[in-house]
Amino acid sequence: MTLFHSWRSELDPERVMEVQVQHWKDEAATSREEHVTVEEPFEVRLGDQSLAVIMRTPGHDVELALGFLLSEGIIQGPQDVIDVKNAQDEDGLPLENVVSVALRRTTFQDALQPQSPKFERHFAVSASCGLCGKNSIADLMLSVPALEADELRISFETCYGLAARLNAEQAVFRHTGGLHAAGLFTHEGELLALREDIGRHNAVDKLIGYGLEKELFPFKEHILMVSGRTSFEIIQKALLARIPCIAAISAPSSMAVELAERGGITLIGFLRNRSMNIYTHPERIIH
Amino acid sequence: MTLFHSWRSELDPERVMEVQVQHWKDEAATSREEHVTVEEPFEVRLGDQSLAVIMRTPGHDVELALGFLLSEGIIQGPQDVIDVKNAQDEDGLPLENVVSVALRRTTFQDALQPQSPKFERHFAVSASCGLCGKNSIADLMLSVPALEADELRISFETCYGLAARLNAEQAVFRHTGGLHAAGLFTHEGELLALREDIGRHNAVDKLIGYGLEKELFPFKEHILMVSGRTSFEIIQKALLARIPCIAAISAPSSMAVELAERGGITLIGFLRNRSMNIYTHPERIIH
Repeated sequence: MTLFHSWRSELDPERVMEVQVQHWKDEAATSREEHVTVEEPFEVRLGDQSLAVIMRTPGHDVELALGFLLSEGIIQGPQDVIDVKNAQDEDGLPLENVVSVALRRTTFQDALQPQSPKFERHFAVSASCGLCGKNSIADLMLSVPALEADELRISFETCYGLAARLNAEQAVFRHTGGLHAAGLFTHEGELLALREDIGRHNAVDKLIGYGLEKELFPFKEHILMVSGRTSFEIIQKALLARIPCIAAISAPSSMAVELAERGGITLIGFLRNRSMNIYTHPERIIH
Repeated sequence: MTLFHSWRSELDPERVMEVQVQHWKDEAATSREEHVTVEEPFEVRLGDQSLAVIMRTPGHDVELALGFLLSEGIIQGPQDVIDVKNAQDEDGLPLENVVSVALRRTTFQDALQPQSPKFERHFAVSASCGLCGKNSIADLMLSVPALEADELRISFETCYGLAARLNAEQAVFRHTGGLHAAGLFTHEGELLALREDIGRHNAVDKLIGYGLEKELFPFKEHILMVSGRTSFEIIQKALLARIPCIAAISAPSSMAVELAERGGITLIGFLRNRSMNIYTHPERIIH
């Protein structure tokens, strides 16, 4: 009844799958092979307790776990982490797609308390005016301080170069058409790491985890570039990681702009060819 | 220090905000106004207990709440819902961005039990082989049956028309550049509803909620078209809503393809101009 058939691609068996599809062009249908991006569930455990299951593109799993913990406010930095490794089954064999993190005891207990403020969403409903973006940001800013004004200055030419660099690097993995990319750059435009994932948030978490492992945290002088749009959650992650500048190829949302403004983050959007919009804190971008 | 200034757009004050930005083109920076999409938190309550907070574009909130409940498996259909309305503060005034749903008593109790299988993520880690997509899909299929083979047939010309129709309708709201769109079509290609949201999942949930309100559920003869990619979660939503055909402008993930295959759903990707790929169940698409 169906033509379904799939196998792991030799190109990159962990992240690319090949499937047989029926391809239509005008009035003709033919059978052909197509690449698709691998999506797999990934579980982060604190010790042996499950914290979250995330759908992600495999690869850089330890980075993803570390970045997720930091950008969700569960750890404050690498000092809170004792060990990160693949979880094991009863026979001591590694469990694929499951990472277990050992935290310092106090952090660990805190995070698993369901009533812990760290582990709740960063929103509280005010009885007087309902739930709104302005209040949510105010609540978040109570627990996470804004970045302070700094001496970081980035030339506009460096900004223009970011998108081209991200694009060029991403080209090696373009054939599936299904991935978001994020790049971590120095303030001089050097690409330190590129991560791609089926989830926008995961690509950012992987970079934050990369920075934790490479002792770049807090990221005082770095630029985070994302291939798509910027939403509240992306800016929230950047704020917790203390990244002072975020650039995106597409548009920001209203709450992304408002949080970047309040959080002291320079937010760039529509960075394409030699043009861009600076939504907040333009003082860091210079001639 | 900063040029930040924002106000609601007269164009569509609920969903479009205007902000003052610094626009750079080559070496010149000028100040100008730009539209951004409004993003606001939205809380779904069961009675007076909070179930979830979702970041979304305002509008069609009741649809979003209903669609979310169905596509997360908390309700099985409109018969489980007694009432949906804005929550109220202590003085009986409506709380913006908070919707309260009254469910039939049994459903209600079930959903709020944290150990309820309905309310858990649809994943279980098998001790023998770790967490993987194949097992996750098998687990899901234990609680949600696949669509059965049906007599639904859709002409390839109807498919080609979907993207153009979605595109034309979306044009009215294109100026912010920040929205995902989803459309619900009849099997003859008539557009019943278009929903746009900063979140891909929300646009789909709003359509599912629309269908619940309009008594179209279960959607035995409908097509869901999304403007972006298809991931596991989009197909999971469609499976719970019993939508037999999903079309997307971009790529599916490996787990989207696998779940569509197992779930009996026709999955179309790269639907652009007069071409498309049919990944699963091509028997429903005819000359």
